[in-house]
Amino acid sequence: MAKQVPKLNLAMIGSGFMGRAHSNAFHQAGRFFDIPYELRLRIVCGRKPETVEDFARRWGWEEVQTDWQSVVTRKDVDVVDIGVPNHLHAAIAIEAAKAGKIVLCEKPLAMNLPEAKRMAEAARKVPTLVWFNYRRVPAIALAKQLVDEGKIGKPYHYRATYLQSWGGDPERAGVWRFRKADAGSGVMGDLLSHSLDLALLLNGKIAEVSSLLETFVPNREVDDAVVLLARFANGSIGSFEATRFATGCRNRNAFEIHGSQGAIRFNLEDLNRLEVFERSDATEVQGSHNVLVTGPGHPYVGRFWPPGHIVGYEHTFIATLADFLECLARQGTFHANFDDAVEVHQVLEAVENSARSKSWRNVSTTADRTSSVA
Amino acid sequence: MAKQVPKLNLAMIGSGFMGRAHSNAFHQAGRFFDIPYELRLRIVCGRKPETVEDFARRWGWEEVQTDWQSVVTRKDVDVVDIGVPNHLHAAIAIEAAKAGKIVLCEKPLAMNLPEAKRMAEAARKVPTLVWFNYRRVPAIALAKQLVDEGKIGKPYHYRATYLQSWGGDPERAGVWRFRKADAGSGVMGDLLSHSLDLALLLNGKIAEVSSLLETFVPNREVDDAVVLLARFANGSIGSFEATRFATGCRNRNAFEIHGSQGAIRFNLEDLNRLEVFERSDATEVQGSHNVLVTGPGHPYVGRFWPPGHIVGYEHTFIATLADFLECLARQGTFHANFDDAVEVHQVLEAVENSARSKSWRNVSTTADRTSSVA
Amino acid sequence: MAKQVPKLNLAMIGSGFMGRAHSNAFHQAGRFFDIPYELRLRIVCGRKPETVEDFARRWGWEEVQTDWQSVVTRKDVDVVDIGVPNHLHAAIAIEAAKAGKIVLCEKPLAMNLPEAKRMAEAARKVPTLVWFNYRRVPAIALAKQLVDEGKIGKPYHYRATYLQSWGGDPERAGVWRFRKADAGSGVMGDLLSHSLDLALLLNGKIAEVSSLLETFVPNREVDDAVVLLARFANGSIGSFEATRFATGCRNRNAFEIHGSQGAIRFNLEDLNRLEVFERSDATEVQGSHNVLVTGPGHPYVGRFWPPGHIVGYEHTFIATLADFLECLARQGTFHANFDDAVEVHQVLEAVENSARSKSWRNVSTTADRTSSVA
Amino acid sequence: MAKQVPKLNLAMIGSGFMGRAHSNAFHQAGRFFDIPYELRLRIVCGRKPETVEDFARRWGWEEVQTDWQSVVTRKDVDVVDIGVPNHLHAAIAIEAAKAGKIVLCEKPLAMNLPEAKRMAEAARKVPTLVWFNYRRVPAIALAKQLVDEGKIGKPYHYRATYLQSWGGDPERAGVWRFRKADAGSGVMGDLLSHSLDLALLLNGKIAEVSSLLETFVPNREVDDAVVLLARFANGSIGSFEATRFATGCRNRNAFEIHGSQGAIRFNLEDLNRLEVFERSDATEVQGSHNVLVTGPGHPYVGRFWPPGHIVGYEHTFIATLADFLECLARQGTFHANFDDAVEVHQVLEAVENSARSKSWRNVSTTADRTSSVA
Repeated sequence: MAKQVPKLNLAMIGSGFMGRAHSNAFHQAGRFFDIPYELRLRIVCGRKPETVEDFARRWGWEEVQTDWQSVVTRKDVDVVDIGVPNHLHAAIAIEAAKAGKIVLCEKPLAMNLPEAKRMAEAARKVPTLVWFNYRRVPAIALAKQLVDEGKIGKPYHYRATYLQSWGGDPERAGVWRFRKADAGSGVMGDLLSHSLDLALLLNGKIAEVSSLLETFVPNREVDDAVVLLARFANGSIGSFEATRFATGCRNRNAFEIHGSQGAIRFNLEDLNRLEVFERSDATEVQGSHNVLVTGPGHPYVGRFWPPGHIVGYEHTFIATLADFLECLARQGTFHANFDDAVEVHQVLEAVENSARSKSWRNVSTTADRTSSVA
Repeated sequence: MAKQVPKLNLAMIGSGFMGRAHSNAFHQAGRFFDIPYELRLRIVCGRKPETVEDFARRWGWEEVQTDWQSVVTRKDVDVVDIGVPNHLHAAIAIEAAKAGKIVLCEKPLAMNLPEAKRMAEAARKVPTLVWFNYRRVPAIALAKQLVDEGKIGKPYHYRATYLQSWGGDPERAGVWRFRKADAGSGVMGDLLSHSLDLALLLNGKIAEVSSLLETFVPNREVDDAVVLLARFANGSIGSFEATRFATGCRNRNAFEIHGSQGAIRFNLEDLNRLEVFERSDATEVQGSHNVLVTGPGHPYVGRFWPPGHIVGYEHTFIATLADFLECLARQGTFHANFDDAVEVHQVLEAVENSARSKSWRNVSTTADRTSSVA
Repeated sequence: MAKQVPKLNLAMIGSGFMGRAHSNAFHQAGRFFDIPYELRLRIVCGRKPETVEDFARRWGWEEVQTDWQSVVTRKDVDVVDIGVPNHLHAAIAIEAAKAGKIVLCEKPLAMNLPEAKRMAEAARKVPTLVWFNYRRVPAIALAKQLVDEGKIGKPYHYRATYLQSWGGDPERAGVWRFRKADAGSGVMGDLLSHSLDLALLLNGKIAEVSSLLETFVPNREVDDAVVLLARFANGSIGSFEATRFATGCRNRNAFEIHGSQGAIRFNLEDLNRLEVFERSDATEVQGSHNVLVTGPGHPYVGRFWPPGHIVGYEHTFIATLADFLECLARQGTFHANFDDAVEVHQVLEAVENSARSKSWRNVSTTADRTSSVA
Repeated sequence: MAKQVPKLNLAMIGSGFMGRAHSNAFHQAGRFFDIPYELRLRIVCGRKPETVEDFARRWGWEEVQTDWQSVVTRKDVDVVDIGVPNHLHAAIAIEAAKAGKIVLCEKPLAMNLPEAKRMAEAARKVPTLVWFNYRRVPAIALAKQLVDEGKIGKPYHYRATYLQSWGGDPERAGVWRFRKADAGSGVMGDLLSHSLDLALLLNGKIAEVSSLLETFVPNREVDDAVVLLARFANGSIGSFEATRFATGCRNRNAFEIHGSQGAIRFNLEDLNRLEVFERSDATEVQGSHNVLVTGPGHPYVGRFWPPGHIVGYEHTFIATLADFLECLARQGTFHANFDDAVEVHQVLEAVENSARSKSWRNVSTTADRTSSVA
């Protein structure tokens, strides 16, 4: 006999690319994981009635709305999920949090650090999630596990790139991601935020940065590319690059860590793989292990398909949601939450200031935030 | 306003690994594709009531049954989907076909060629599908397209391997796939059938074979490995290998074609990639193109996620089902159907006879079948 | 003070591609290895006086001749090295051996098995070398070492391909390798012989074969491609393919071994790499090690350049020669010698007979040869 | 009949790793290339008589000396080749140049920019070569050709890493490369100089840099790692990293360029490959071409072995020397010469100043040098 599980009523604001990815996760989480809730896809909210009706039908939402204000305070909503352009995140999240809703939000959390802090403050008493979904790529979860077990040893180098190539595509010239008022920034919020979140997860806090921002397209309002140097609190050094002008690369979100005992390499375009170098291997067979992270012994993958049967992009959202729900049920603290996203914004702010001032900038410490909470 | 679409009531026999993959496809097809039916997951049928109840709850089946006979003739069932051990395929499929149901069946279709022919005969008047799902890997669909466009030119070589490594795993020693009465064969039906189906799709009919079967585990009833040479009707030559003893390979379903104008390479463990060599490239930059088959310009992928966002194993079932439903609605002939699977069994029979007799064997021609239909 | 080392006077018959590779090795061996002889490049012999004069000047040969008969019996010659078309190997080698010369010969040793046996017989009392140079690719020598140490365990599968693509190149249509009278065979002697030599080295004797020969070019006298199945004496099974019609592949001499404890993969186009899978790795980091075989701990490479600095094609000849000279000095038995090449020809004969008769053929055992010696 | 070619008498100062690489090139250049000189290996000079005697015997030097001063002014010396620790470069090169000798020198040319300028000034009237040998990797020469032909289009991004891992090896803790007085710097001069030379070659002048230097080993006098951002004069942006603490990487000298029309990727550990992306490819087959740069149509490689037969590290020195001699004969200007090395030092100086001052630094322009010459 099935045990009775509590219901969670979901409302999703937004019905674009992320709306699809989230809706899919809402349906699929319970199929692959033993989630402790019954999810009910109550309301999807979008600006254009017809589009959102179609969306609702396809993705199984019960009700359609076009005004988010009315939705986030509804009594029959437990969770508000935000998948709209960046400039709307704060208002929706703060309103929802005030109404006591659980808040899930796309990245980047906010338009800038002060806004991110206000959001985290407002949501201090509700569970939050930020869709830094790549933390739950099985290979990245394995990387985290190896780092935590000391398999990399003392870290020396961290190197991350997030390379896309659609920045000059005339067909996409009008998208909101190029408007400063809508997106806040270009690749910084869109791509670099992902790389920074993973770096903070895998290699800890960043102490200071020196950065360079570039906009290749005349009159474009936001950054097309960013490159930066970083010193981490643990003594390692790193570099980051994010761009929409890396011809030949569709979605190369990649990183490498070199430590005293080993090394790790990952590339999102081949997300079922992790390359792992171990100095403890016999000398004559030392070389990066080409690990197909589909089990056995790997995070999440027992949940999906048998060993050797790969997963895709969407599974990162499914695993993120499943972990969140499990945390929620046992009242644990889920990561990445709004506070984690504030830390990403702290680095982003330092990156922006560094580029503007052409000087090294310290990353403001989380201590600031914590004290402000007390 | 949504157009009204007809309903299709599904019954699925089996609730194991394939039951999961099919159920997932039944739910997901309509989300990623514009399918011309509303699918209703009516009945799932399994032997153990408790297991199947759990399964039904997780995968959203309305009703549970334990006796397939009662299911396949039910008036409220339009489609019977078969995902049980091989020895049960024929009885279920024939019964269902007689009852006028649309029949979907896992591969290998049958225990042997005569049985496959009986099934095809019995199902002559109903639409059928065999889950040779790898035809719908986007990269393989692209390969087919390139072959059809003449990009490979006159084919010289076809080389396929399907390499797994769990054959000696003591924890799996008791599975039905090792019992001759249940599985019919070992890797021949399980793995080689996939490779043959793709070869027939991409390179046409096989004229004759010389093969070798091996069972590494003492007293095992079925083949652990098969290797074979082949002459294709188009004049090219090939080799096939399927094994569960390829240490280091979880699911390396790979093939290569070399022709007068180009070459193609694929590996299921990296299923979003296709390597394409084109002799028409300028001499100094000739080299295999490493194509990330996630669009633009690629089959299916506009259906899933944006370029650079990879798909996984399960999407092959989703795309297979979507294509089938589209065919069904316009009364077209879907492939792979039961007749296509008969062709695979024709080769399998020749392979088995060749290995037993240690001699080359012709593959019986499909003409036989066609005439028998008249 | 340098120790006095004996001189070895060399004569080389042939001044083509192999003449270059051998001459280079004669010069370079003493630079990278501590060879126990002083090599003197006495005579190079070629048909066209002008060509061979140029060659001699470039490659540092003291004297030029155009008639091999006069050369192989010269008192001031200790070593006769044969790098001419296949049909000339036997006469030269037998004459040289009768004159008591050390004989080095290109592969394939002979036009056919009987000739190879005659050559081995004639050379029974002199040291011999056959230029199966790939045995001394550092990565292959490492593979041999790993096999011998049991790192692969009981072997299950052996898979070799030697893929080239120049078979249809009109500019090369007139080369001697396409004339049966000069070459004896096509890819069998040219490419498959290499693959077989490595297989015999790494996986032991081949018991029986089933093969297929194909000539794609009308009126061509020799085989353009060969594919074959093999049963090894150790119980493993294998396949081999050699072709000049593998569009996209310049020189892909590749093999894989899967055993109970591990696996190995090699590709000559990337000859400084060996992929090594070890089942003894911790489950979560199991995956092929991508080993850059340039030391430390690797065969030969301490001889060449520091770790990470790769070697090329020519170094395989250098290492082969150095090993031979070291054996010679201590009167050890060098491999591959004429007897080893006879074993390759035993397989080649079985391959040819199998293809002609379309049946499995046993490989004649070396016992035959040994008894014939008694 | 051979044409008479002039003789060039060589003296080499140094008999270590670079002494081997250069000696090898001196012997091999004339075998693979049609060089317009007869090279005579006259004198090798080293500190320890016994070591250098052994070296001379092995590498075919006629005479041994231990005092470079006496050598560089010798009448029977035309060319002085410098392969000693960095702090000795200037004195030897200047003395040799004053004596009218042709001067070849290892990189980094000097201990710092002023010294480099003095050297270039002193050598203004003699032909010079700096052993930036990687310019002549066939794949890099192909990259240069593609860039010059506009195949990359307008460049956006340049990304270079030079990753080694021996920095913490206790067995090598005492080498001169870690002593500031001998080496001048750590990875900056040793590794970064190579990356910068290639960047200047392939992507033109660097306008400004922001950098970070790190020494991981306590009390080590030189930099273990450097990371930097760069703005190029052509408007593209870039990053560089050089380190001896990249666990898992033996000699990964790699770079990537992304431009409006294409992209290029190279890695020295796989030096016979170039990855080339071309936007002009048909959409559905766009992907990096995996080019095995061994001909046909590729730079140098017709000189070495047939297509598909790879070359190694040492061939970069051979091709460099051959190009130099060809320039010398026609009194052309060879690159990289001392002036090119000065440009590298200009960047290195800016890098060092940037790291010390923690600020962006302009790279002093070559105009300075040119005017100082007038």
